Amino acid sequence: MARVVVHVMPKAEILDPQGQAIVGALGRLGITGVSDVRQGKRFELEVDDTVSDETLEHVAETLLANTVIEDFSVHREDA
Amino acid sequence: MARVVVHVMPKAEILDPQGQAIVGALGRLGITGVSDVRQGKRFELEVDDTVSDETLEHVAETLLANTVIEDFSVHREDA
Repeated sequence: MARVVVHVMPKAEILDPQGQAIVGALGRLGITGVSDVRQGKRFELEVDDTVSDETLEHVAETLLANTVIEDFSVHREDA
Repeated sequence: MARVVVHVMPKAEILDPQGQAIVGALGRLGITGVSDVRQGKRFELEVDDTVSDETLEHVAETLLANTVIEDFSVHREDA
C-alpha cells in the first residue's frame, strides 16, 4: 500500500472567489500581510503497489480535476 | 513575499462522504487498487515576510480549518 496525494488548484487565470473571500475576511479580522489566497483541493489516496503512475494520472485528470479550469499534480508519498 | 501552503483534512475518525463517493466512482469506472480516498482542502497564501508563524497558525486554525472535524498543517515553501 502506498499513499498518493493529488493537489487540484484553480488555474492562475481563473478567478477564485473562495480565495478572495478569505482575503477579505483576513482584512476584516485585522490581519495584514496576506496579499493573495487561492483555495484548491487535496486528495489522499491509499493505493495498492500494483496501481501504475499512468492510472493515477488518469484518475486525477478525469475524476478529481476539471482540467478546463483546474491544474492538478500527483505525488507518491514515501512510506 | 513567501508562499505558504495550508492543508486541511477531515480528521481520521470523521466520515468523509466525498472521499467515499470517489471510491465508489472508481469502482464503477473499472479502476481497481484504490482502497480509500479522503478529500480535503489546500490553500496557497502569498504573505509578506513580516507575517509570523504564529499569525499563520492563527489564520489556519480560526479561518481555514474547522478544528472540531478537521486537522490542518502549515508549510512555508522555499522561494
